[in-house]
Amino acid sequence: MPSTRVLRLAVPTLLLTLAASGAVAQQPSKAEQTLKYRKAVYQAIVWNFGPMSAMAQGKMPFNAAEFEMRAARVAALTPMLSDAYSAESQNVSGSKAKPEMWSNRADFDAKMQDLVERSATLATVAKGRDEAKTKAAFFDTAGTCKSCHDKYKED
Amino acid sequence: MPSTRVLRLAVPTLLLTLAASGAVAQQPSKAEQTLKYRKAVYQAIVWNFGPMSAMAQGKMPFNAAEFEMRAARVAALTPMLSDAYSAESQNVSGSKAKPEMWSNRADFDAKMQDLVERSATLATVAKGRDEAKTKAAFFDTAGTCKSCHDKYKED
Repeated sequence: MPSTRVLRLAVPTLLLTLAASGAVAQQPSKAEQTLKYRKAVYQAIVWNFGPMSAMAQGKMPFNAAEFEMRAARVAALTPMLSDAYSAESQNVSGSKAKPEMWSNRADFDAKMQDLVERSATLATVAKGRDEAKTKAAFFDTAGTCKSCHDKYKED
Repeated sequence: MPSTRVLRLAVPTLLLTLAASGAVAQQPSKAEQTLKYRKAVYQAIVWNFGPMSAMAQGKMPFNAAEFEMRAARVAALTPMLSDAYSAESQNVSGSKAKPEMWSNRADFDAKMQDLVERSATLATVAKGRDEAKTKAAFFDTAGTCKSCHDKYKED
């Protein structure tokens, strides 16, 4: 059937539809999609941060290979936040970003850059498989999360 | 109080809390957390797939640098799905995975591996900045999404 064949050939139709901002009335707005993406990246970071945190605090046995894998993931994820705070997503509902985040954008961006750099360092250090150095680099990275959340994230 | 001890106690509290499955009654179960992580990784993939799809189909001007960046992100994200389908998440509500996915696990895993490999190839090809080759590698990757969704994902 020609129409079915056309559909089958249009391989990424589903993905395109999801990405097309406002092209279809039922689709979320670009701002809503951005917030959803933002939360998704943080969620993936948290998932991988959790076991590292438990290991760093001795609540789980230190596993150098797992630590290295999760640190590499987090280092890949943190730069993905660069398109998660576009201007049009400023007033979207459901965000926990404080208004100060938007009015102190340069400071926020610097904190983000700090997170990107420290998570990259953590990934490098974790490859060395030295427990003490890896844990120290982890706490250094975790500190950047807290410093930004304290200032710019609603509880 | 030694600063290290303060850091150890204070810094990753938030993350630990989020990661501690069932430690607090209000926390989601491990299965629910896994589903949330799974959806988050797909959401991040879709966000980056969207512009590539639009470029590949000529609905957006081809931007080799952006294509390379988004292909690298997707190649980093697809292996993160390896811990997104753990056994305990099989019966969690809200999943669109069909029961066949769990009963044909080896086939599903092979399809996942295909996605991981083709997205890695796409990232390598996109670095070459050749438009035709990049688009071909994109459709090749997108085909692995569709082949798995058709078989194992509810509409």
